[in-house]
Parts: sequence; C-alpha cells; structure tokens
Amino acid sequence: MADIPARTEIERTEIGVTTGPIRGSRKVHVAARTGSGVRVAMREIDLEGGEPSLRVYDTSGPYTDPNAAIDINAGLPQLRREWIMGRGDVEEYDAREVKPEDNGQLGPDRSGGVPQFPSVVKRPLRAKAGANVSQMHYARKGIITPEMEYVAERENLGREQIAQDRDGQSWGAEIPDFITPEFVRDEVARGRAIIPNNINHPESEPMAIGRNFLVKINANIGNSAVASDVANEVDKMVWSIRWGADTVMDLSTGRNIHDTREWIIRNSPVPIGTVPIYQALEKVGGIAEDLTWEIFRDTLIEQAEQGVDYFTIHAGVRLPYVPMTAKRVTGIVSRGGSIMAKWCLAHHKESFLYERFDEITEIMKAYDIAYSLGDGLRPGSIADANDEAQFAELYTLGELTKRAWEQDVQVMIEGPGHVPMHKIKENMDKQLEACGEAPFYTLGPLVTDIAPGYDHITSGIGAAQIGWYGTAMLCYVTPKEHLGLPDRDDVKVGVVTYKLAAHAADLAKGHPAAKVRDDALSKARFEFRWRDQFNLSLDPDTAEQYHDQTLPAEGAKTAHFCSMCGPKFCSMKITQEVRDFAAKQNSDSYLASENIKRETSPQEAEEAEKGMEEMSEVYREKGEKLYLPEG
Amino acid sequence: MADIPARTEIERTEIGVTTGPIRGSRKVHVAARTGSGVRVAMREIDLEGGEPSLRVYDTSGPYTDPNAAIDINAGLPQLRREWIMGRGDVEEYDAREVKPEDNGQLGPDRSGGVPQFPSVVKRPLRAKAGANVSQMHYARKGIITPEMEYVAERENLGREQIAQDRDGQSWGAEIPDFITPEFVRDEVARGRAIIPNNINHPESEPMAIGRNFLVKINANIGNSAVASDVANEVDKMVWSIRWGADTVMDLSTGRNIHDTREWIIRNSPVPIGTVPIYQALEKVGGIAEDLTWEIFRDTLIEQAEQGVDYFTIHAGVRLPYVPMTAKRVTGIVSRGGSIMAKWCLAHHKESFLYERFDEITEIMKAYDIAYSLGDGLRPGSIADANDEAQFAELYTLGELTKRAWEQDVQVMIEGPGHVPMHKIKENMDKQLEACGEAPFYTLGPLVTDIAPGYDHITSGIGAAQIGWYGTAMLCYVTPKEHLGLPDRDDVKVGVVTYKLAAHAADLAKGHPAAKVRDDALSKARFEFRWRDQFNLSLDPDTAEQYHDQTLPAEGAKTAHFCSMCGPKFCSMKITQEVRDFAAKQNSDSYLASENIKRETSPQEAEEAEKGMEEMSEVYREKGEKLYLPEG
Repeated sequence: MADIPARTEIERTEIGVTTGPIRGSRKVHVAARTGSGVRVAMREIDLEGGEPSLRVYDTSGPYTDPNAAIDINAGLPQLRREWIMGRGDVEEYDAREVKPEDNGQLGPDRSGGVPQFPSVVKRPLRAKAGANVSQMHYARKGIITPEMEYVAERENLGREQIAQDRDGQSWGAEIPDFITPEFVRDEVARGRAIIPNNINHPESEPMAIGRNFLVKINANIGNSAVASDVANEVDKMVWSIRWGADTVMDLSTGRNIHDTREWIIRNSPVPIGTVPIYQALEKVGGIAEDLTWEIFRDTLIEQAEQGVDYFTIHAGVRLPYVPMTAKRVTGIVSRGGSIMAKWCLAHHKESFLYERFDEITEIMKAYDIAYSLGDGLRPGSIADANDEAQFAELYTLGELTKRAWEQDVQVMIEGPGHVPMHKIKENMDKQLEACGEAPFYTLGPLVTDIAPGYDHITSGIGAAQIGWYGTAMLCYVTPKEHLGLPDRDDVKVGVVTYKLAAHAADLAKGHPAAKVRDDALSKARFEFRWRDQFNLSLDPDTAEQYHDQTLPAEGAKTAHFCSMCGPKFCSMKITQEVRDFAAKQNSDSYLASENIKRETSPQEAEEAEKGMEEMSEVYREKGEKLYLPEG
Repeated sequence: MADIPARTEIERTEIGVTTGPIRGSRKVHVAARTGSGVRVAMREIDLEGGEPSLRVYDTSGPYTDPNAAIDINAGLPQLRREWIMGRGDVEEYDAREVKPEDNGQLGPDRSGGVPQFPSVVKRPLRAKAGANVSQMHYARKGIITPEMEYVAERENLGREQIAQDRDGQSWGAEIPDFITPEFVRDEVARGRAIIPNNINHPESEPMAIGRNFLVKINANIGNSAVASDVANEVDKMVWSIRWGADTVMDLSTGRNIHDTREWIIRNSPVPIGTVPIYQALEKVGGIAEDLTWEIFRDTLIEQAEQGVDYFTIHAGVRLPYVPMTAKRVTGIVSRGGSIMAKWCLAHHKESFLYERFDEITEIMKAYDIAYSLGDGLRPGSIADANDEAQFAELYTLGELTKRAWEQDVQVMIEGPGHVPMHKIKENMDKQLEACGEAPFYTLGPLVTDIAPGYDHITSGIGAAQIGWYGTAMLCYVTPKEHLGLPDRDDVKVGVVTYKLAAHAADLAKGHPAAKVRDDALSKARFEFRWRDQFNLSLDPDTAEQYHDQTLPAEGAKTAHFCSMCGPKFCSMKITQEVRDFAAKQNSDSYLASENIKRETSPQEAEEAEKGMEEMSEVYREKGEKLYLPEG
C-alpha cells in the first residue's frame, strides 16, 4: 500500500486528461489461467483490519495505473495488435482520403479545427477477400480467441474466492458458476453475447455484452462547439471510464468530428460506438432527404477504418411504421429514427438502411464491427410505451438480427426510453423472443416523465429492473436529460447511478460474485473501518466528502461511531454485545445466562484511547442528532 | 395567472420559514362534493398554449399560499378542531407537567434552550372514559368523518377529468376508479388504510396511508445540537413538505426535544411521527438497561398530549429473536431495535413493549395515535435481507396488529432496509399475509450496499418497486445516508427522489389519474412549452436552472428546439411532419401520397419571428452538440 498516494489525482494533469489511481486501490494485471500470456487489467482495493484485498472489474484503462506512461499524442498501447495479425486473415490497405465534409466542411487546411492525430493510421486493416474477422465467426468455427480468454478472466473476477451460495432470480439467464473461455466462445457463437472490437481499434481491452455476463453500462459523449483543446475531448472519454463506463458512444456532430473521433479511439481502452447517420447527415448539410446510400456507405467505411467498435443503425424504422407514430404524445424522439422517418416520408420509399442491410453487414464483418440495431421508434413518454410502432420495429430488428447472423456478424438490440414499471418486463420478454437472445441494450427506461432534473434517477429505477430481467447493457442518462448538456459532474453522477443500477441487477440475477463487494463494504461499515467503506464504494471521493462534512476530524475515520447515533449510543456496538452473548450461550439456554455486564469492555477501552473525548466534542459541535435511525 | 409571482420565494423569509408558491402554481381550496363544507387544499398548475390547468396533490400546507398569514409563534389554524369537538367524545384535562428530562436535562429555567411555544396547550384533549376516538373506531361504527371526506376529495384529484383507461398491474390492490368517503371509511374499518391524526394535532390536513390510495412518502428530520433558532427547526418540516413529504418524523434526541416538538407540531399541516423510545432513552441518560415501562408510558403520554400522530413502537423485537441476529453481517441496525435488544439481553426478559402492548394500545385509542410497528430487526445489508430474524419479527408485528385492531387502533407496519431486488416482493407478500393488509411503511429498500453517497438512488430503486408491489408509504433516504447528517439540499433531493419513486409506483399500479401529469408534461415537452415543462415537474427550480445552464436566454424558453439537437435538426419537428402527413392520408394509402414539401411551413415561419437567428447564435456559443440522442 505504500505506493498508493493518500489522495487520488482527480484533476486533469499536464498530460491533459485525468490520471491517477482511484482512491485506495491499485491496478493489477492478472495472467489468464489458461497460461496463454493474456493479462487482464483489474483494480485491487486494499483493506484494513486484516481483511483480504478485493479485486473489482476495472474499465479505466492505463489512466489509473501510475506505472503507465500516458501520452495522448501517441495513443494507448496496441494490446490486441498481435492477436489480430496472428490470425492471418487481415490485410493492410490505403485508407480512404479524409474529405472536408468528414469534419463538417472544415477547410482542407483545417484551420479552426482540432489538430490531426499525429500518428494517424494511413494503412488500416480489413479482412482479406473472402475472410470474415468477426469474433462470432471465429466462435462458430470453434476457435477460442485471446479476446475470449481476456473476457473470461475479466468476468470471473472473484468467483473463486467465494463459496458459491447462489441466490437470485435470473429470469431464464444461464449464468455459470465459473466462466471459461469456452463458455465465452459458445455465448458469442450463439449470438447471446458480443465482444465489440474493431480490428482497427487494437487498443481496446476486450469485454463482453450479454445476458449471462455482468451487466454493462454505456456513457455518451459529444464534442464541444469550439474544440480547440483536443485533450478536453479525450478527457470526456477518460472521465467516463474512470467511474465505470464499459463502452462510450461518441455522438459528436458538426465540425471536427472525424479528427476528434480519431483522438478518442486511439486513446480509448473501451469499445467506442457511434451513430453513423449523424455524420452522414452533416455531410448533406442537415437535409435528411438528401441522404443517400452512397454517402452513408462512405461514412461507414470512414468510421470502420478509424476503429469504431459498434454502429447504431436504425434499419428498423421502416416506411410502414412511420404513420404508427402520428398519434403518439411525443412522436419520434430518437434522432436517428426521425432522420430515417423523414427520409422515408420524403421519398415515399422503404428505408435504404433496411434495403441495403446485407451490404452493410458485408462491411461490418470485414472489420468486426458489431451492430447496435437502433430503436428509432422508442417511446419518448409514458403514454407511448409499448405501442404498436415500438414493437413493430422490434420485430423487424429481430428479423435483421438473423440476417446479420447469417454472415456471422455480432448484434445487439437497442431498446426502451420511457416505460412505466409494469410495462418493462414485456419489453425484455418480447426482445428475447423476437431477437433470438441477442443482447439487449436499453436507454433507462425512465419510469415517469414528471421529474426533469432527476432523470438519472427515474431512468436508474427502470435500468435496474430491465437489467435484472436480462438487459445486457444500460445506456446512462444524466441529470441534464431533456434540459441541457451534461457537464463533468453530471457525467460522473450518470455513470455512478448506472453502475449501481447494473450492480443491483447483477445481485438480483444471482451473479455468483456480485455480493462479495456488498459484503465487504457492509462488514467495513459494521466494523467502523471508514476508509474501507469509502474505498469500497463506487465513488470513494464523494463518500469521504459527505462523511467529512459532518465529522471532518481525521480521528473520525477510525472512531467507533458515526454521525447518525453518536458516541453515546451505537446500534453497532449493541450488536457486538449480542454476538458476545451468543458466543457464550447457545440460543436454547440464553434465558438462563448471566447478566450482561455494564463495565467497560476492552473494545470500549480501546476507543477511549483513540480520542473518544475529542471526537465527542467534535460531534457535539457538528450536530449530534440523527435524521434517520438507519445505522 | 397575474397573481402568481414569476419567481418563487424559496429562501426563508423574515417569518423564519420558507414561504411562497411553488413556481408556476397556486393554492386552491376545493369544496368536497358531499357539500358538507369540507374544503381541501390543492395546488393548481396553470399552463400555456390553451392547455387546461392541472391540479396536483399538495402537502405543503398554508406556507405556499400567498393569502395565508404565517406566524410560527401562533401555529397553524386548527382545521380539525370543530370536527373533533363536534363528536362529543373528548374531554379537556390538565396536561402532564413538563419535566427537565423531557428536554434532555435542560434546567427548569430552560436557559440555553429554545423558547417555549407561546400558546402551548395546557389543557389537551383525550377520549372521555370509555370512549374510543380513533378513526378506525368511527369507521367500524359506520361513521364517515370529515377526515374521511377530506381524504376522499384529496385522493380523487383529477380522476373525473380523464377517461378511465386503466392500465397497470396492481398486484392485488383494489384501487377504485373513484374514491368516495364511504370507500375511505371501509378501508379504514378493514385496517387497510390509516388516517393518522391525533386529536391534539387539529392543525393537520387529513391524509390516508393505504395500498389502495396514492403512495405516500415520509421525510425524517432531527434537531440541531445548538437549537437557538427555533424557526430553523420548524423550517426543516416546512421545507420537507414543500417538496412533497406526506408525513414527517421528528427523530430529535438530546436537549430541547420536548419544546422543539411542540413548535413543529403546532406548525405542521402533515402528520408527525416519532420514536418515543428515543426520548425515553434520553430520560435514563442513554442507558438502555435502565429503561422502564413507567418511563416509557410517561413519554407516550407526554407526546400524545402534544399531538404526535403516529408512534414507532418496536414491540416486535422479542427476546427469542435477538440471538438470531448474532451471525448477521451488520447485526441490528435499527436504533430502536438495538435499544430493545440490549434491554432484553440485560434483563433476560421479554420486551416490556411486547408485554405491555395492550396497555400501549389503550393510550393510542384515547388520542387516536396510529401505531407504526417498528422493524427493529430490519436488514442493514444485502447479506442480511429476508433472514430469520427479520421475518420472525414481521410475524410478531402481524400478531400485534390484530391485537391493536381488537381495540380499533390504527396500525401500519415498518419494513425493509437493505434488500436486493429479487427479495423485495417476498417482503410485501409476507407482510400482506402476516399483517392482514395493514399498510406497509418501508425504508427504501436499498438494493445494493456499494454506493454510499448515492443511497437516495439505491433506495429509490427499491422504493419504487416495493411501492408498486403495495407498500403504502416510503420512508425517504438522503444522499448522506450512512455518512453524515443531511443538509437542506440533501433533504430536498431525498424528498424529490422519493416523490418520483412513489409516482412511478402509482403509475405501475394503474392508479387512475397518475398518468395525467406525465401526459401533460410530455405534451408540453413535445410542444416546446418549456415553462410548462418546468412547472409540471416535481422540482421546477432545478429543471429551469439546468435548462438555463445551456441555453440561458429568455428566448430559449419559447424556442422550438432544445439543446439536445439544436435548431438545425429537431426530431420533434419531424414528428409534426409525420402528423401532418398522416392527417392528409389514411395509413393504407400513404405510399401513393404526394411528396412532403421542403418549403418553410407556417410553424417554421413563426419560429423565425421568434428570433431563430438569435437563438441559433446562442446555441452555437453554448455548444451545439448532444450527448444523448434522446429528444
């Protein structure tokens, strides 16, 4: 522990992005037990009081590793490069030329734009003619890739340390006690999980999205209007993954988006998703009717070469479904959905995304890009939940899933929006049925419309539930939803809210090791190991800050009481007496046992040494009263 | 609308407490349709664009009524005094003398304490010998009280305005389309609902807690260590009810608690609950073993005379259950529970609360105080959820419920704590079975232990679910839970979080009028009536503030676009085109219809008049990009 700074550097450093370990923890690299040499990054939280340290799933990449040299101008190490090349099925080729419209009509000299990424890839990879480089393709051929090994080790985290007292309601999920690389392969082969990792994003640390794995979360980021500081753009991604985002969607529009995306991907250890229609729309000056298959296709290639790991494609917004939205309270709220609806109406034609779907799939398999089939008709209000338009699109997404799978291309399905609690499960059930158990990826859902300013919570409630029912990844919502653009604090609150919702879902599903962290934290709480309690939490900085607002003295971190009950009376201490009592008696004979003594116990004497008097004084000054009887 | 100030006074005024209407709304008093003269306070939100105004349930009392004269030295008007006296079954008598120990050993001169309430009641009311003044007693005799009438009108809110398109999963609740006073009477008679209102708290506006009524929320407050400013103590209550607390529990301990409680009750329009064992413990210097029935009984009388509306009584913590907690991860976390456990262990005796239960009930019925049977053995961690100790106590609470009902005393049952999602419903099911459908009143539950600092959210997730399953009242949790004492902002966040959770539960249960507010807000959102969207939200101030951080210009409040998509592309506008299209075509012939024109529509022209150019400029400066595709 000597190597860990007492305080985490959570401000951006001179490197330009946020670095430094998350408080109280250190980066470890765990060798896969297959002995293949794959080493998986994890975070280890050291505890006090002789408690064993706890390893937790870590999305933060090298940024939280004090031993890693971070240089956003160079990008991250290419963890997967050798694995990709070693399969012998890819070729380098001359990249498509970057055009002015790629960056929102920024001139050729790019003045006013962000700088180009210094070592931009001029020769990207693609599958050799006739080859298919998707993880699904390998899986179906029976090949266990290093990516699958990585995922297995990463997901297994802690499962050996615990007695497998499975306890949960999994709603039909098949979560194994232990995850083997073969299990990962099988899930990917069946389409029940995806490992999104474009061969042109070798910097990514493989992760799986699927109902039988840990529930994942996504954070959305977007570029600033004046993107002069590219580090600021990269830091949005770094900040999101620091707090637990498993994937990041870059939803940038306007100028500089091609170059900004390059900076983000080269520095991202998590999969990056995009909605290519946004950029395609920019290329036609924002006029949806002017979109063409050729422009869209060119955009897919552009982003494929950069390394985008999954594409949201709204191919389920079919012409016949558009009029179904006419009577809705909030119509079409998906931006991609409304773009395609407008195109369909304007041309009186079926969507080119739907008609060209197999051609899109051809591109996806050449780079191993996963589909995130967009829910362009998702409900934007409680009134519109689970309506005809929504489910018509869902069943089309199911049809497209099967078509993608015919070419061994990985697929997940986007869902919800605004859905009251009693209608959430129907979404999951229909998705499982329609889409052959392809992973579900949902926004929230928000369970009421009446709390703008608190929609991270209205949606966190729905997210926890749909995660429990089987959704594989939850797209976060920030407190600014419906109102404005999130700032740094909003992003953190959104990520942590979704992290706790995903974890609650893992617990309820009976994920074997999920409870380990809850138990460790609760034990720390019970034993007044305040620092451990902070460090085990999803947001140690906020936990400590809140504690210190009431009891700021350093001694309060070891005091055997808290601000809720104060030193005079403590329910935790009473439980200790109950335990002592139970240890002396068996429960049948306790009535005959001798009286509990009121003398000072050794524990109490120890507390006195720790400055009980001083703490009592602090406590009296700060307010000795409780608002809540919860200990 | 001319009478409504543009901005709400949300800071405390010279009166000492927070007054002024909630933004965009006004207090109305609605005569009960029975014609009895009962008038029910509600809040009416006026809308723009020709939309009808919307009435919402209002807990805030006269403090949000600009026409009410607020004087905390005088207390609130005694709304119920005539009703109580009119029944002819009460008598005045000389109050118990206030003793030094009532205020935590404050000296007889009360120096250093808060001032005594100026017009303190010297002659409180109690039932005449042989009489029973509980609402349940009247209900069982077939009497519809004005309190029941008030509740019926209050709960009916908006139900006539809407088509009764019931839509929900009520899990066996029997929510009528329309609530009559007779329905209220019947629910109270059956014990399925309570109307907590001590005859010595005539200032309260009657409200019901029951599975077939709107889900309610409780906020806890506690006194400050240095309570020199009594207005500050009263304002904690006023602030909580402003944002929607249906009841308030005063969990104060230490000095000044008797006098502080008097100030709070005299100024509270909502029922006040307490945990009398806290004060009893103060009276014996914090030594649980020294508690006696006599001291406890005296405390009940003291608080009964002041007007406390419900008492948390931990009579289910029986001696045989205490050893069941020995192996828990977090033992006994309820303060009341641990006090009683310690007492039982120390004396090797059954709890005096259990043994004297019928005597307690005698007191309750003389004042119409409701039981809130405390869950002293609730789980304090995920590991301890639904264990033997917890359910042993619950079944005892069921037994006690029936004993209280034998004397026609109203009862609700306290529950949860920390419970993972898959174990929540079992709590509700067992409670319904064990306690004969007496209302359930739960803390959260928190669905994971790992997010201190965010426990309003971990518990809001559980609260929404258990509320949906049938819990009648949800006890709020603030972000400071487990860490420190909540401040004013924390209280507001806690209340709003629980309000949205309760509303989500109402929606999911299919409460007839719950969706009206969601629909009104979503319609406002869709039509870019920004002010209406703010005013219809649970927290208009925060909603507007968040909006203004991105688009502060006053013109942005009427702009037909938002910061998510910006003026160039707006999904809401596209939906309008879909509607126009659908209006011209029936959905069978849309393929043959003429092309949608790209010319400027009348709506677009109008927007231009509203300063589109100016707004676009603002938008560009502030950041034209979206983080989230949600409209």
